Amino acid sequence: MKTGLSFLMAAKQCEMADLRQLQQTSALVQVTSRMIHELQRERGLSNLFLGSRGERFGEALQNQRATSDATALELRTAFDGLETGAGRHDNGARLFSRIAYVLHGLGALPGLRSGIQALEWTPTTATAAYVQLIAGLLAVVCEAADTASDPTISRLLVALFNFMQGKEFAGQERATGAAMFAGGVTGHDAQQRLLHLIDSQERCLQVFTDFASHDTRSLWRECQRASALADLERMRRLLGTASVGGPLNTQFSQVWFDCCSQRMDEMRLVENQMTRELLDRCASQLATAARELEQLQALELRLHTPGANADADPDPRLLEQFFQGALPAASVPPSQPVGSQLERSVLEMVQAQAQRLQSMADELDTVRASLNERKVIERAKGLLMAHRQLNEEAAHKAMRQMAMSQNKRLVDVAEAVLAMRDVLAAGAP
Amino acid sequence: MKTGLSFLMAAKQCEMADLRQLQQTSALVQVTSRMIHELQRERGLSNLFLGSRGERFGEALQNQRATSDATALELRTAFDGLETGAGRHDNGARLFSRIAYVLHGLGALPGLRSGIQALEWTPTTATAAYVQLIAGLLAVVCEAADTASDPTISRLLVALFNFMQGKEFAGQERATGAAMFAGGVTGHDAQQRLLHLIDSQERCLQVFTDFASHDTRSLWRECQRASALADLERMRRLLGTASVGGPLNTQFSQVWFDCCSQRMDEMRLVENQMTRELLDRCASQLATAARELEQLQALELRLHTPGANADADPDPRLLEQFFQGALPAASVPPSQPVGSQLERSVLEMVQAQAQRLQSMADELDTVRASLNERKVIERAKGLLMAHRQLNEEAAHKAMRQMAMSQNKRLVDVAEAVLAMRDVLAAGAP
Repeated sequence: MKTGLSFLMAAKQCEMADLRQLQQTSALVQVTSRMIHELQRERGLSNLFLGSRGERFGEALQNQRATSDATALELRTAFDGLETGAGRHDNGARLFSRIAYVLHGLGALPGLRSGIQALEWTPTTATAAYVQLIAGLLAVVCEAADTASDPTISRLLVALFNFMQGKEFAGQERATGAAMFAGGVTGHDAQQRLLHLIDSQERCLQVFTDFASHDTRSLWRECQRASALADLERMRRLLGTASVGGPLNTQFSQVWFDCCSQRMDEMRLVENQMTRELLDRCASQLATAARELEQLQALELRLHTPGANADADPDPRLLEQFFQGALPAASVPPSQPVGSQLERSVLEMVQAQAQRLQSMADELDTVRASLNERKVIERAKGLLMAHRQLNEEAAHKAMRQMAMSQNKRLVDVAEAVLAMRDVLAAGAP
Repeated sequence: MKTGLSFLMAAKQCEMADLRQLQQTSALVQVTSRMIHELQRERGLSNLFLGSRGERFGEALQNQRATSDATALELRTAFDGLETGAGRHDNGARLFSRIAYVLHGLGALPGLRSGIQALEWTPTTATAAYVQLIAGLLAVVCEAADTASDPTISRLLVALFNFMQGKEFAGQERATGAAMFAGGVTGHDAQQRLLHLIDSQERCLQVFTDFASHDTRSLWRECQRASALADLERMRRLLGTASVGGPLNTQFSQVWFDCCSQRMDEMRLVENQMTRELLDRCASQLATAARELEQLQALELRLHTPGANADADPDPRLLEQFFQGALPAASVPPSQPVGSQLERSVLEMVQAQAQRLQSMADELDTVRASLNERKVIERAKGLLMAHRQLNEEAAHKAMRQMAMSQNKRLVDVAEAVLAMRDVLAAGAP
């Protein structure tokens, strides 16, 4: 029959297989985030083009479409490189469905572009279309990340994913502002949307800050110092405080687009650093796991050498020590070395591994808890939007006001909203 | 290059592989829960034996040990049947480590038993040892269950796991009460412990009730009606209200053990029903997935028949519909059937799958959220126990009092406790 030691070795080998899979996934995340970046830029330029009623930015948009297409080809090559056999990928059922969705979205891109070229789409609807495709790409990243069972790697992935989500809000901000400046007029909805996007962005970046490594946080701080942040804030103020219906200087279109784009490009650098960190972390964990596996294999070898007497029953006093972890220290007689050195080593490794698993599980729970709060809030918002005909900003604002007036956390209000799901649904038209 | 359709098929195949794995895992869960049941009985009898200073229950204990050993052999055979190759099991790294721990625990059992036979263990320390081994077995169930990505199956697993945990508290209650009656005296600690175990049991059974199927809940209600619940409650009252230091009628040992055991045996029936439900659910999900895969394969076949013109660019108007999900209904012109029937079918399947994934993810989050609350509470309790030298009951009581006096939920207090982790650690001796 298989021994505890052989299961420990099997566990270690599974851990290594998981890490290798994550390395492959990280490469996929890298090209996916580049694809997102190019589509974000294409969205911003499309809005400048649509906002100016096709009079300006046509050439820049054409160039950007070519760049997007080149990246799409790389992305499809990366998708093709995935092993799609059943059981070849831990989270295959979900990951591959997300990829199918993205491939259809990319297939629909030419239709979207010709609609934009013919000015058949408004800035709002065009933005929504790109948002949908980019959300599909972000979902690929999210599924790819969902398999990590090591908490340090989970933390990196949570930081990365929230940063990418924050960057996407920044991209939507660029697109919304671009349409406003290019159109030369302050719309109420667009203005509210802009303020909401800035707010959402900051919430994501806060989660990023909570989970990112020290180095990444430093890089992000530096980027913000070096960037055209002052320009951006001035433009934001212009857009945010302009009176509704009043004119906006169309000359600022380019300035707005440039300072937003500079920020987005800097965000790409941070993303790159995070994917590199992820790969480094995988490599170092793999090296550790390989060393541990070697130790286990060496132990097994010694158990099977003639002198080791592996078939004899192990010393019962040694085995009894297994249970002493459960007892208050005072009730355990001072332990004398019993059993062979070899037997003690195996027992120690089993116990160390059990402890390690427990603390990993605890930390993973913490990471999941903080993610879960965000998801609950998003879901409650969605419910309010669907059943109360609110837009996203209004739904968020309504929940924030409830939280303030009831002196509760936002997540508690969100849970209360979800609990009233049936009531809300019944009241819908 | 691979198409969206081929990724959809790959996703479906992964889903089927996951379900087949879960079927195998369910068989493992079944034998693990039987092992737990036998060890729980052995623990109770050991306490009767120790409580009577070895004067009674010796034969029953010997018989029970033989039964436990027979089940342990079945369990080890089930472990041996697991495919341990890397990448053969979704959660292998953790599951196999837990199994290694259990195998060592089972190996240590003879040592524990001879210590009990020689009256070297007290009822308290012997209970703690069995608790440790059973906790290891419960952890195997927990890891085996952690791979489910389908929310209906997740709910079943959550119900099952909480029921098993509740049953284990019931088993600890039996063991504690058995030692009290057999010893013939009411100890303060044992009495407090008993009350706490009843409380913990009820909390687990509440979660079980929240997540179990209608049929299982009915069965559980019936069991409780049919059982010796009145006897149990009378005995509980005796133990719970006896004055500390006062005598207990040792004659009740057998009555107590029997009515507790009847309850535990009924709980086994409920467990069995749940594992059967789990297997049924896997089978029906597998059948659905197989049908869906056939549909996808039929579509692919048609795309590759000569008349289908699969290489031609799809109708752009059809593809544009991809984006119309993102738009408010009013902004979309009434959609006319565009593209071929075939192209429409593929698009519909991609979109249906994306929606299904989203609602599954939402529901999984809800399940996880409720589990997470429980974990946070357990962890905070552990922290208080470690750093404030409290036992489990006292730690739980302290948190409950904080919650009441601050008018907060228990989980909020637990989070606050965890947030003070460093402060607590600094104050420890």
